[in-house]
Amino acid sequence: MSRIVMKFGGTSVANVERIRQAARHVKREVDAGNQVSVVVSAMSGKTNELVGWVNESSKLHDAREYDAVVASGEQVTAGLMAIVLSEMGVPSRSFQGWQVPIHTDDAHGAARITEIIPDELNARMDEGWVPVITGFQGIVPDTGRVTTLGRGGSDTSAVAIAAAVKADRCDIYTDVDGVYTTDPRIVAKARKLKAVTFEEMLELASVGSKVLQTRSVSLAMKEKVRVQVLSSFVDDDAPLADTLPGTLIVSDEELEGLDMESQLITGIAADKNEAKVILTRVPDKPGAVAHIFGPLAAANINVDMIIQNVGREKGETDVTFTVPGADLVRTQALLEEHKDTIGFNRIITDPKVAKVSIVGVGMRSHAGIAATMFQALADRGINIQAISTSEIKVSVLIDEDETELAVRVLHTAYGLDTETA
Amino acid sequence: MSRIVMKFGGTSVANVERIRQAARHVKREVDAGNQVSVVVSAMSGKTNELVGWVNESSKLHDAREYDAVVASGEQVTAGLMAIVLSEMGVPSRSFQGWQVPIHTDDAHGAARITEIIPDELNARMDEGWVPVITGFQGIVPDTGRVTTLGRGGSDTSAVAIAAAVKADRCDIYTDVDGVYTTDPRIVAKARKLKAVTFEEMLELASVGSKVLQTRSVSLAMKEKVRVQVLSSFVDDDAPLADTLPGTLIVSDEELEGLDMESQLITGIAADKNEAKVILTRVPDKPGAVAHIFGPLAAANINVDMIIQNVGREKGETDVTFTVPGADLVRTQALLEEHKDTIGFNRIITDPKVAKVSIVGVGMRSHAGIAATMFQALADRGINIQAISTSEIKVSVLIDEDETELAVRVLHTAYGLDTETA
Repeated sequence: MSRIVMKFGGTSVANVERIRQAARHVKREVDAGNQVSVVVSAMSGKTNELVGWVNESSKLHDAREYDAVVASGEQVTAGLMAIVLSEMGVPSRSFQGWQVPIHTDDAHGAARITEIIPDELNARMDEGWVPVITGFQGIVPDTGRVTTLGRGGSDTSAVAIAAAVKADRCDIYTDVDGVYTTDPRIVAKARKLKAVTFEEMLELASVGSKVLQTRSVSLAMKEKVRVQVLSSFVDDDAPLADTLPGTLIVSDEELEGLDMESQLITGIAADKNEAKVILTRVPDKPGAVAHIFGPLAAANINVDMIIQNVGREKGETDVTFTVPGADLVRTQALLEEHKDTIGFNRIITDPKVAKVSIVGVGMRSHAGIAATMFQALADRGINIQAISTSEIKVSVLIDEDETELAVRVLHTAYGLDTETA
Repeated sequence: MSRIVMKFGGTSVANVERIRQAARHVKREVDAGNQVSVVVSAMSGKTNELVGWVNESSKLHDAREYDAVVASGEQVTAGLMAIVLSEMGVPSRSFQGWQVPIHTDDAHGAARITEIIPDELNARMDEGWVPVITGFQGIVPDTGRVTTLGRGGSDTSAVAIAAAVKADRCDIYTDVDGVYTTDPRIVAKARKLKAVTFEEMLELASVGSKVLQTRSVSLAMKEKVRVQVLSSFVDDDAPLADTLPGTLIVSDEELEGLDMESQLITGIAADKNEAKVILTRVPDKPGAVAHIFGPLAAANINVDMIIQNVGREKGETDVTFTVPGADLVRTQALLEEHKDTIGFNRIITDPKVAKVSIVGVGMRSHAGIAATMFQALADRGINIQAISTSEIKVSVLIDEDETELAVRVLHTAYGLDTETA
C-alpha cells in the first residue's frame, strides 16, 4: 500500500468528460490498494476568464478581492471530481483550501503555504475516502480571507499536501506525458526523460518548460517529495506504482541509483513571458540598485536577469533587467513612482524578448559548455542581449522571434535529438 | 441617514459593465449619506452552467458537493462588485456566506438560514464601508460545509441580512422595474403596482410571477422588512429614498396608509415549472396519503396541488398532485422506491401543465370572484385540471400550451388592462 497525492491540471479537468477520465486514474490507484488524495486545478481557461473580469473591473484592484474571485475556479472542479468519484464507487468529498485548512501568509495573489493541518485528510484516507482538494489556494488564519498561490500554484498545493500527509509519491497529471529535453511542439526530435533531478527540473521549470511550476519543484526538493509528471490522457488499467510511465523527479542520489545514461545537458527551455526593462542614466553609486529593486521586491515582482552597462556617462549607467511580462505595467508604475529616489532618465521596455536556457547537472563537471551555446547561436546570427548563469544552467536573452530557431539549434548542438522522429 | 440592503440579481450583474451600472446605484445611496450592504447573485446563466456540470457528473449526486460547486458563482460577482465599488471611491470588501457568517441548517441544496451574525457587517457599515455579500449561500456551523439556499435564494439572503442589520429597507434590483398585474411579456396591457402587501406578493411569487422568491417574501413578512423591487437598468442620479420608483412590498397596515385605489384582484400569475403526477389505484384508507407525501417531504420536494379522485374502484382511488418540474425525476424515483408501502398501480406524469392564479386581498371581502375565473376560462374552452384556493388566491392547473391565453383572458376579465398600452 502506498499513499499517493494525484494532481490534475486545467486541461485534465477541462470538462466533465475529462474529469471522468481523470477519476478513472484515481479509481485505478484506489483499486490497487493505495490511499489517495486528489488536488485539482480550475478548468483550463476558467482562471483566465476570472482574471479577465477582475482586470476589466479595475486595473488597480485589491489583491484580496482578486483572490476571492479567482479561487472560485478550483471549487467547481473539486466538487465535480468528488461527485464523479462517488458515482464510480470511490467515496469522496471536496475540500476548499480553508476547509482543510491550508494556511498561507497574506501575500494575496502570490501567497505562500505556511502550514497544512493534515488531520482531516489523514483520517479520511485511513477510512478509505478520497479527499479532493482545491489547488492554488488557502486561507490566512488571522483574517479568514481566501488567498491564491499565484499561477500554477496547484502544483505547489499538491506537493505541500504530499509532504503534509507523508505521501510516497506526488503524481502530477497534465497534458504532456513527461518532461522532455525541450518543448516537443518546437522540436519534433525532443526526447522524453525518464528521470531528472530536482535541481534540473527547477531550472527547467523556472525558465519556462511549462511542465511544473517552479515553487512546487523547490518545495518538493526541500520536503523530499518524489514527484512524477505524467499524462492524464493515457488510459491504462494497470496500476502505475511499478511502471512509472512518466518522468520521475528525484534527488541526485536517487537518480544515480536509477543508473541511467548520463548526459551533459538534460534539456533546453524557452520562456517568452519575460519583458525587458532598461533604465537609462541611473546614478552609478552605492545603493542605486537597491533603490530600483527594493520597491519591485516589496511588490512581489520577480526580477530575473540584471545587466549594468557601466561607463556610458561619467557617474551614470544604464540598468537592464527582466520581469515577468504580466508584471510589466505594475513595474513601470512602481518605477515612475520612485523616479526621484532612483534618479533615472527614461524607462525603455521591450516585451518582445525570450529567455533560452540549457540545463544539466553534467555542467558541474565539464567546462566549455557555455561556449558551445554562444557559438551555435552566433553561427545562426542570433544576437544575445543578456546572459545569466547558475551552477547547472546558462540562459541567454534573445529576440522573441528567434526563440524556436534558437531552441532547435541548441537541441542539435548538444546531441539531444532522437534518432527517429 | 437610512440603512439599506441592496440586492442585485443575475441579470444585474451579468457582466462587468452591468456590475458597474449596479455599483453606480450603490454609490448614489452612499453619497446620499446612507449605510449600505450589498447582496449579489451569480452572473445570469452561471448557476445554470454549474448545475449543468453537476448533473452531467452524476444524476444522483451528493447535495453537499452540489452546493460546493454551485456556490462559486456568487463568489465571483461579490469580489468583482467590491473591486468596482472601491474603484469608484466607495470602500468595499466581499464576504462569502461562511465569512459573514451566515449560518444555515444542513438541508444542502435548499438550506434555511438559522442565524446571521451581523457584528462584522455592522462594524463595516459604521466605518463607512460597503460589505458585498454572496447571496444564495451559507455554512453549516457544525460541519463547516457550504450550503446553498435553493434557486432564487439570493432574495432570501438579502431580506435575512436586512433583518439582521436592522435595515430600513431592502431594495431588490432586478431586470424589471417593479411588480406588475401580470407578466408584461404576456400581457402588453399589464400595469405596474405601486405597492402590494406581503401576502399578495407571497401568492404572486409562489405562483411564479418570477419577481421575488417566495421564501424571501415570507421572511420579509415575518421579520417586517420593507422590500422594494426596482430595476437596475434605470440610471437615475437622484437618491431613491424619497421617490421609491419601484413596487413597495409592505404590511396590510402600511398599504392602507398609502391610500391607494383598491382593486379586487391585484394580479394574475402563471407558473409553467409545475409537473403533474398521477398515482393510480392507491388504497383508499387512512394513512395512504401520508405514505405518499412523507418521503417527498423528507426529500424537500414541495408538493403543491393535491386532488384525490374517490370512487374509481371500491377501496381504491387515484391521487393527483403537482411538484416542481425540476424534482419530477427524483419524485418518480422516490415513489418507485416506496411502491410497496404506498401500494399504487402506476405512475403517470405530465410536465406540460401550468398553474394560473388570481391574487388579491380584496378577495377576502367579496364573493363570486372564483366564479368569474371559471366562466372566463370556460368561455375560451380552457379545461381546468385541478383547482386550489387560499384566502387571497385561486389557482387552476391547465394545459401548458394555454397559459398565455388564460392569463390574457383573466387580466381582461378582472379589469386590470391599462387604458393605454
